[in-house]
Amino acid sequence: MFYLAIDILGTIAFAISGVLIAMEKKLDLFGVFIIGFVTAVGGGTLRDLLIGNVPVTWIKEPVYMVTIAGTVIVAILFVNKLKYIRKSLFLFDTIGIGFYTLIGIEKGLSAELTPIMCIALGTITASFGGVIRDILCNEIPVVFRKEIYATVCILGGAIYFLLLLTPLKADYAFVVSIISIISLRILAVKYKISLPNIYRS
Amino acid sequence: MFYLAIDILGTIAFAISGVLIAMEKKLDLFGVFIIGFVTAVGGGTLRDLLIGNVPVTWIKEPVYMVTIAGTVIVAILFVNKLKYIRKSLFLFDTIGIGFYTLIGIEKGLSAELTPIMCIALGTITASFGGVIRDILCNEIPVVFRKEIYATVCILGGAIYFLLLLTPLKADYAFVVSIISIISLRILAVKYKISLPNIYRS
Amino acid sequence: MFYLAIDILGTIAFAISGVLIAMEKKLDLFGVFIIGFVTAVGGGTLRDLLIGNVPVTWIKEPVYMVTIAGTVIVAILFVNKLKYIRKSLFLFDTIGIGFYTLIGIEKGLSAELTPIMCIALGTITASFGGVIRDILCNEIPVVFRKEIYATVCILGGAIYFLLLLTPLKADYAFVVSIISIISLRILAVKYKISLPNIYRS
Repeated sequence: MFYLAIDILGTIAFAISGVLIAMEKKLDLFGVFIIGFVTAVGGGTLRDLLIGNVPVTWIKEPVYMVTIAGTVIVAILFVNKLKYIRKSLFLFDTIGIGFYTLIGIEKGLSAELTPIMCIALGTITASFGGVIRDILCNEIPVVFRKEIYATVCILGGAIYFLLLLTPLKADYAFVVSIISIISLRILAVKYKISLPNIYRS
Repeated sequence: MFYLAIDILGTIAFAISGVLIAMEKKLDLFGVFIIGFVTAVGGGTLRDLLIGNVPVTWIKEPVYMVTIAGTVIVAILFVNKLKYIRKSLFLFDTIGIGFYTLIGIEKGLSAELTPIMCIALGTITASFGGVIRDILCNEIPVVFRKEIYATVCILGGAIYFLLLLTPLKADYAFVVSIISIISLRILAVKYKISLPNIYRS
Repeated sequence: MFYLAIDILGTIAFAISGVLIAMEKKLDLFGVFIIGFVTAVGGGTLRDLLIGNVPVTWIKEPVYMVTIAGTVIVAILFVNKLKYIRKSLFLFDTIGIGFYTLIGIEKGLSAELTPIMCIALGTITASFGGVIRDILCNEIPVVFRKEIYATVCILGGAIYFLLLLTPLKADYAFVVSIISIISLRILAVKYKISLPNIYRS
């Protein structure tokens, strides 16, 4: 119940981020819904496919589609106000990343994967929705260019597995890791920390 | 047998639409074949992956690949004549959409999914081949921009489930829904009905 | 053991080709790693998904991710020298294509597919990593435009199945087919053989 509530919050935040970008691209109503939808469920869908968890989560649980449809309608109605709350969006998005990363890791542990693979799955869950969104909008995915986005997921995942080596309970390690991801992302954006671009000028 | 014949007709129509676009993009022979192929099987492949119906249909049934290879060869040989029959292409394409939507819905019912998910699967089956085609050709998918395409699939799916609530036999409901999709699409294009673009100018 | 060694060599070659292209696109460190990663595992991942071999190979076998991570680090450190060894890269890449095609065919045979489907799976294994790489970098996939790339995979696959009809042992047919693919690709590039573009000017 607690996990579901958090998952839904993340879904809403990601759906809104997709809607905003789809509207910038001047897509029609269906396009806006689809971009919102894939941004919200794309990462979890790829994760489910890769580990063979099919039918994928959003097909088994209609709550995701209903949530996203409602979110898109509300987002379109209140789009002018949304522009003023981009900062809270960033916060929701960041919360979503934190929880999605750990949810992906948990799915990897259930499938008895190694920690490296679990962290990879967590990162895919948190970041791939945005990748699909950008591909559908014909952009080089922003996550590859200037966001310290996936790096934060990887760090958070590493923190989780390090904490599991301590006497700390798994549940607390889970929460601490989520908070770490959220904090690191906020700090990275606040202080404009990014990965170096690896090229010769 | 009846379903297979219809499915093959839809496959041919979608393959031709892919060939025409690939040739506009000046792809080579292999590129033209691949674009024809993914346009024809892309939607059904994503549907199969999402619900765990693997190996996916076109791998289990070689008839699809043979049909598409033959279609691409014929389309390339008669490309100049194809330009004059774009209207019949639109008709074939529309027939394909109608049947693909209902075939996708049937697959969803076989997997015991809810009506909303069945309609989503039908829409994916009918429209995602074109989305992959456009991504591979480096375009924003046309279905997101100006076509009342997926909307018609969704309406047709809704009609099907409404008809199932009446005393009408399922087979008749199936056929009536297909005819509804085809008619709605023709009317929408004839009268230039499209979804509103959701943006501020 | 022999197969694994070859597979790893192909993985390294494909990862390096991804790194070089990602750096031309000025992606950040994470982007460079991901493009190297998908170039190396993308084809095998799509093959595994299509036939239902899940979790996909790179999730079950951490050796691939470790290999790619190491390759990306080394490639970035020695990028200036890499520019001078593009010819050996072409050779590694070509070796990779040869082995990936036959590995894909073997997976198809294990899944009891027809020869046509096996060749399709081999071609997907060898070429789809490059397709995903180009899509993520916002390019029309090069394989669709001017490379006689997939054609060579298909020819090599056809040679393999023809040889299986002879008294030649399957293992020798495997090796001869790989050598055929490598030779055909080198000859095609040396003599600038390419598929005709199918369009009116």
